[in-house]
Amino acid sequence: MTTVTIWNEFRHEREDDAVAAIYPDGIHETIADGLAADGSDHEIRTATLEEPEHGLTETVLAETGVLLWWGHEAHDEVSEAVVDRVQERVLEGMGLIVLHSGHYSKLFKRLMGTTCSLQYREDGATERLWVVDPGHPIADGLGESIELPRTEMYGEPFDVPEPDRLVFVSWFEGGEVFRSGCCYRRGSGRIFYFRPGHETYPIYENEAIQRVLRNAVDWATPTEGAPRTFGKRD
Amino acid sequence: MTTVTIWNEFRHEREDDAVAAIYPDGIHETIADGLAADGSDHEIRTATLEEPEHGLTETVLAETGVLLWWGHEAHDEVSEAVVDRVQERVLEGMGLIVLHSGHYSKLFKRLMGTTCSLQYREDGATERLWVVDPGHPIADGLGESIELPRTEMYGEPFDVPEPDRLVFVSWFEGGEVFRSGCCYRRGSGRIFYFRPGHETYPIYENEAIQRVLRNAVDWATPTEGAPRTFGKRD
Amino acid sequence: MTTVTIWNEFRHEREDDAVAAIYPDGIHETIADGLAADGSDHEIRTATLEEPEHGLTETVLAETGVLLWWGHEAHDEVSEAVVDRVQERVLEGMGLIVLHSGHYSKLFKRLMGTTCSLQYREDGATERLWVVDPGHPIADGLGESIELPRTEMYGEPFDVPEPDRLVFVSWFEGGEVFRSGCCYRRGSGRIFYFRPGHETYPIYENEAIQRVLRNAVDWATPTEGAPRTFGKRD
Amino acid sequence: MTTVTIWNEFRHEREDDAVAAIYPDGIHETIADGLAADGSDHEIRTATLEEPEHGLTETVLAETGVLLWWGHEAHDEVSEAVVDRVQERVLEGMGLIVLHSGHYSKLFKRLMGTTCSLQYREDGATERLWVVDPGHPIADGLGESIELPRTEMYGEPFDVPEPDRLVFVSWFEGGEVFRSGCCYRRGSGRIFYFRPGHETYPIYENEAIQRVLRNAVDWATPTEGAPRTFGKRD
Repeated sequence: MTTVTIWNEFRHEREDDAVAAIYPDGIHETIADGLAADGSDHEIRTATLEEPEHGLTETVLAETGVLLWWGHEAHDEVSEAVVDRVQERVLEGMGLIVLHSGHYSKLFKRLMGTTCSLQYREDGATERLWVVDPGHPIADGLGESIELPRTEMYGEPFDVPEPDRLVFVSWFEGGEVFRSGCCYRRGSGRIFYFRPGHETYPIYENEAIQRVLRNAVDWATPTEGAPRTFGKRD
Repeated sequence: MTTVTIWNEFRHEREDDAVAAIYPDGIHETIADGLAADGSDHEIRTATLEEPEHGLTETVLAETGVLLWWGHEAHDEVSEAVVDRVQERVLEGMGLIVLHSGHYSKLFKRLMGTTCSLQYREDGATERLWVVDPGHPIADGLGESIELPRTEMYGEPFDVPEPDRLVFVSWFEGGEVFRSGCCYRRGSGRIFYFRPGHETYPIYENEAIQRVLRNAVDWATPTEGAPRTFGKRD
Repeated sequence: MTTVTIWNEFRHEREDDAVAAIYPDGIHETIADGLAADGSDHEIRTATLEEPEHGLTETVLAETGVLLWWGHEAHDEVSEAVVDRVQERVLEGMGLIVLHSGHYSKLFKRLMGTTCSLQYREDGATERLWVVDPGHPIADGLGESIELPRTEMYGEPFDVPEPDRLVFVSWFEGGEVFRSGCCYRRGSGRIFYFRPGHETYPIYENEAIQRVLRNAVDWATPTEGAPRTFGKRD
Repeated sequence: MTTVTIWNEFRHEREDDAVAAIYPDGIHETIADGLAADGSDHEIRTATLEEPEHGLTETVLAETGVLLWWGHEAHDEVSEAVVDRVQERVLEGMGLIVLHSGHYSKLFKRLMGTTCSLQYREDGATERLWVVDPGHPIADGLGESIELPRTEMYGEPFDVPEPDRLVFVSWFEGGEVFRSGCCYRRGSGRIFYFRPGHETYPIYENEAIQRVLRNAVDWATPTEGAPRTFGKRD
């Protein structure tokens, strides 16, 4: 059991009727419903860009065990001070799940040290996410693959450091592949990048995707660890 | 909660009075006491070389969630058939914790694909195990290092594949270092190699070492995962 | 410049007219032609199953810098003694490139410690190998992907340890993906598994595939290194 | 053969007589001498903090194959614009060797995504760097360890991502250990962090240390690679 904070930019849903039709209360609320769908007792909160400090105050972050991050068109509006603060909390142990277009967030690029660039095509074709690491806890309870009938395509190369563990690789109808589920640790924090989730498709209503997110929250939940003591030594 | 089987060669304790004085009931029983020391509800069993099938029948292995392995002078007496069987179970998901001189067991060499050779000196000098990965669950509740006043030295190079995660590095009074806590996955099974544990020193009575073993059992406990389906596809 | 030995089982070519039509002198000779196609000055040799000691005597191995391995229907006929010998040489530093169905060779399974199982379908459909690590020397001079119009499909899960570096991921027309170019080190030896190469398709005549093999030979060529000294220490 | 640029903050040598006595022309010149000591034909240049754009103009970086970085007291004076530019070049393929206190440079922290913190003690005691990966090209021609009679101590934990390859682990007389030689790739660039090199000890005159730096330059030299094409796809 941990406290989960779902961060959403929350712009597309208020600017674009097509997106609002799919996610009327915002992507964050749909994700929240999915996390709660198995009756787990996580405490689930949300935060959005337009709130003071983007809803990610010192207090909120101190209480958060796992943070989910969805952003797309307003990455540049996220303040450096908040990125600093979130990065620091991740290094101290807070779990982080970066979703879809969040690959281009300041936060993810900061933690990866690379451009996090990729190729893309918004064609609404089929994606199949293959489990390439069936022993990983993020794959618990899944079948051999997850099929999404209509998605935006993301293609390789994906400019990220080699993942510690690669859990999913996507096949796209149009001919591309993508490393869609990538695990990292930075400091004491567990980080999972998960590709699916475009705003114009109801990806977060898919039960297998919801299962992945619940598994990822469990996996990313902080553990106790040993002291992170730095500096001058006698 | 899982079922833990502690496998011990159980020779030194019956052949050498000095060892028997430290581990009168066998190293396996001392390890078992340490695993139970926090009141956890794992079911703990033991198995030894001289039992039929070395105590590792199909049934025992099928019921075992995490296997600990201590061996030294009789590695060659472990049958290939049992090694085959244990390897298969690890790949299916059973956790494995290989202790000290178990680095040279048929089983560990089989799973690593290398010689698992190292340097050593039985000098009874001090070892300090530094936590180099304070965020790892195997380091939960530890301080920055564990000090063992008298141990056998193991020194680099250690001929193993680069670990997935390196948790401990040992400093030895005599001038050597060693990667003492190495995490691997093979198939669905989690493997942890942990250096301390020579038969002529009461290492397994050390509370920090016991804590590491309990943490390692928790870390290595099988998770559900996704299907491992192989072969011809339609 | 190094000495390259191409090992081929050399059965299909002599038993099956369709294979003989594609590889009249054996797969090994076509691979040899491809390795020499850029005028490099490697010394290239071949060895086959039916030669004494499978053509892999102590002398041959001592002189070999990089070994390529193609096998399929006769894995079980490779003697354990030769597998022991080749494994030992890899750990000492000899490079190894395992091709296609060689994933199931005793040698590769020995070095990986896993079953090396996968899914497959012999449907002659299209494969596209994406370069997921454009900075890797094995990708030198390639485009963003390599297209093979007709191949046998290999699909995930592929039961191997997480690669040190993943260079290629394949997309298959039928809906699967596969980690097709995987780098490992074991001891001082560099190992590259490369998926393409079925006996009933002229894969090794493809210029991009030949380029990959030349790159892989360069990458796997032994370096000097430091002493691998093991055993008792004063 | 590549073009090597050695960047040095070049402050201690001009402010502190004790440092000037060891490195009268600056640490960069001593490093340059060591790189040239085997008669290799790299073109070696230097650049320092006080030069315009810290000596790292677009032109200089475009021509540089491998950049070495030594900084300590003036990390904050390095402009963000230059850090941006160097990071971009590393991702495009330029090699980077970060030395000693450079662990705390803006550049290294940017590329790692972590604090890069550690423990330290300036006690002038002995360090022994053990080769834990004797098969690595950066270890070419070394013995089993390198002994430095007097150094500053760096101790674990070292807050960096798990290295792709760990080449050296240091033993310190005072009881600590440190992961002293760490390999990373970010984008197409190879990065090597190498611990030795304090300004008050003549570390860069040590022949084994010079050999490591030459090996590291060879290892980090850019390779051709495949296209890094990102963005919208047809």
